[in-house]
Amino acid sequence: MNTDLLRIEAADLRQRLQALGRIGDTGNGGCCRLALSDADREGRDLVVGWMRELGLRVQVDPVGNIFGWRDGTQPELPPVMTGSHIDTVATGGRYDGNYGVLAGLTVVHTLNRVGITTRHPLCVAVFTNEEGARFQPDMLGSLVYSGGLSLADAHATRAIDGAVLVDELRRIGYLGTAPLPLARPRAFVELHIEQGPVLDAEGGLIGAVHNLQGISWQALSISGQSNHAGTTPMRLRHDAGHCAAAVACFVRRLADEMGGSQVATVGSLTLHPNLINVIAARAELTVDLRNTDEALLQQAEQRLATFLSELAAAEGVRVESRSLARFAPVQFDPAVARRIQAQARRLGYDTRTMTSGAGHDAQMMARLCPTAMIFVPSVKGISHNPAEHTEPEHLVAGANVLLHTLLELAAG
Amino acid sequence: MNTDLLRIEAADLRQRLQALGRIGDTGNGGCCRLALSDADREGRDLVVGWMRELGLRVQVDPVGNIFGWRDGTQPELPPVMTGSHIDTVATGGRYDGNYGVLAGLTVVHTLNRVGITTRHPLCVAVFTNEEGARFQPDMLGSLVYSGGLSLADAHATRAIDGAVLVDELRRIGYLGTAPLPLARPRAFVELHIEQGPVLDAEGGLIGAVHNLQGISWQALSISGQSNHAGTTPMRLRHDAGHCAAAVACFVRRLADEMGGSQVATVGSLTLHPNLINVIAARAELTVDLRNTDEALLQQAEQRLATFLSELAAAEGVRVESRSLARFAPVQFDPAVARRIQAQARRLGYDTRTMTSGAGHDAQMMARLCPTAMIFVPSVKGISHNPAEHTEPEHLVAGANVLLHTLLELAAG
Repeated sequence: MNTDLLRIEAADLRQRLQALGRIGDTGNGGCCRLALSDADREGRDLVVGWMRELGLRVQVDPVGNIFGWRDGTQPELPPVMTGSHIDTVATGGRYDGNYGVLAGLTVVHTLNRVGITTRHPLCVAVFTNEEGARFQPDMLGSLVYSGGLSLADAHATRAIDGAVLVDELRRIGYLGTAPLPLARPRAFVELHIEQGPVLDAEGGLIGAVHNLQGISWQALSISGQSNHAGTTPMRLRHDAGHCAAAVACFVRRLADEMGGSQVATVGSLTLHPNLINVIAARAELTVDLRNTDEALLQQAEQRLATFLSELAAAEGVRVESRSLARFAPVQFDPAVARRIQAQARRLGYDTRTMTSGAGHDAQMMARLCPTAMIFVPSVKGISHNPAEHTEPEHLVAGANVLLHTLLELAAG
Repeated sequence: MNTDLLRIEAADLRQRLQALGRIGDTGNGGCCRLALSDADREGRDLVVGWMRELGLRVQVDPVGNIFGWRDGTQPELPPVMTGSHIDTVATGGRYDGNYGVLAGLTVVHTLNRVGITTRHPLCVAVFTNEEGARFQPDMLGSLVYSGGLSLADAHATRAIDGAVLVDELRRIGYLGTAPLPLARPRAFVELHIEQGPVLDAEGGLIGAVHNLQGISWQALSISGQSNHAGTTPMRLRHDAGHCAAAVACFVRRLADEMGGSQVATVGSLTLHPNLINVIAARAELTVDLRNTDEALLQQAEQRLATFLSELAAAEGVRVESRSLARFAPVQFDPAVARRIQAQARRLGYDTRTMTSGAGHDAQMMARLCPTAMIFVPSVKGISHNPAEHTEPEHLVAGANVLLHTLLELAAG
């Protein structure tokens, strides 16, 4: 049949989102389902039940990733995979992760309703511990799936509450036996709320995400000389507080000058002794640098390092820098991103290519197969917050783009 | 007699400093004699005993200020007064205040030894609660003496420990009955350690202090928008943390551009939520501006206000400003400052005119009579700290300048 006019059933998606949102409901619009907690088990059980109702073959791997498999007309072909996660942070919303998983189920529901079997198999994935709120690192399930972390290391991971990951998997009944990885997909497409303000503030309903920022986190410690703010002339100061502020102003200038995807943030800054009339002896601050281009990210790091050594010499302070995290940027598959955008246009939706500033399971899957993401707007960019919201018609639009992107990929 | 070759007795000054330093000794080189505490009483009793031994007529006024009076050859003339305070902060040193009082006694001791009677009477004053560490405001005794605060208001002042000032005066035996003010002096000269780094860092043994900075303290509260540091492009940010840093960088530039005595400090800065990957929603910071010229201090305040409103508009944040303290600058008497410098030169000491960045009793006395101060170096500018130190020969030099300045003023 010609599927051009096929659309997902909005009520099906809405009901699934509502039902899953009730598990771990925080009473203020938010959700708390920390990875491998009792609430996570309850959420998993609900999703697995739905998979079975939809006729999917459910498989769970030894790190607790769940896969719902729908055969194609040529079952031996690699599957086209979609999915995301259903764990949340402690103050999570109802859409982060959940939306991508449940839209995948709604796509299957839609295909079932009209009796379409794709050529490639379809697979809906639920990855374990994407948030990293209870177990570190984040994106743990997809990281193990893509070979970036050994199963043994993952199993030994300790939660913030002291529990060991493998014990928690066993306890909640999700220590599975499926091969790891279950398959190397033909392609992976993850649908997600943006969790940032770009689409909401600048227009555009569908973001075709073609890359993901690299991250460089540093902690800086600046040691100067505490002195009286009244009696110490400017020329004799070794002011750690001024230096911390100068770093914050520099990274803003750096991002403005570099332009493109470069962002730079000093989000944490503490002075000692932090008194109105005392020049700060010490400052502790963090610098968060992100770029989609590894060479440019390194350039930003280098320019910061040069600035810090010049600043230390000029003010007569000591600056120590420590790396807290460093991830290279991820380039998604341009062809998959182009398909997403073409489908969005065909469906009549405003669309733009964009960058993900947050980490997602898709960045791990990109190691294994052609991958891209679909973003829909987050109102005011708010996420990891009970106020996280996406307009219902935007949720439907994103799911329709997912439907047609998967159909095209699974037909090819 | 010709007094040109007269010098103070170094051992007398040293012994008095050591003896007073033992009262409230913190065991690490420091002193804790909070105003009107038992330790302050013990210190007062020691000083009053010395005054009597030196033949001074002791008078205590109703705010606890102590005066040791030495008649002149013309007793009806107004006295030349010197003095300072002997209360300390909780982590005080041995010289702040004490040095000025005890050098005054050593001057008297020296005059007694050689049998000199000055034309004008001499008076050594000990003012109550200069530090403001136990009772607010600071410089309370000299403020009442000079008519800037009513006795009733001063008496009703509550200590940080809840005690009422008049009760504490009575308890320690220093609720006196001398007239208030006891006299309008011919001149007031206060000898003090610098409490700043200028003499120590830039050379100069004797500072002739001809003015005292005005102070403008503001608390700023900046409200922006908390957002994800990765997903929020620079152009869409309302970053309270960046704005706080921009204020700190601006005030540094302002002070550098204005030059002269202008200093500017952001000593306290707090971000919320203060997380590495979250753009700060709110920042609280303080700005400390000081200048010896009221018009220039107002200019600095005005330029800051203009910067804040431009910043708020550019970044899309709200900036609220609240004044925490505002004192106009004090101009000391140029003739008294010139006498100090001339005497220092005659004695062979390096000397410079300078500004006091800290508050002193002399600024209150300047309302009543021609006033100036003598500073000696503080090693590394450290004060209000057990590490506070001035070289013994510098203490002697300052006392000699005090001796000859008082002799000249009392002869005139």
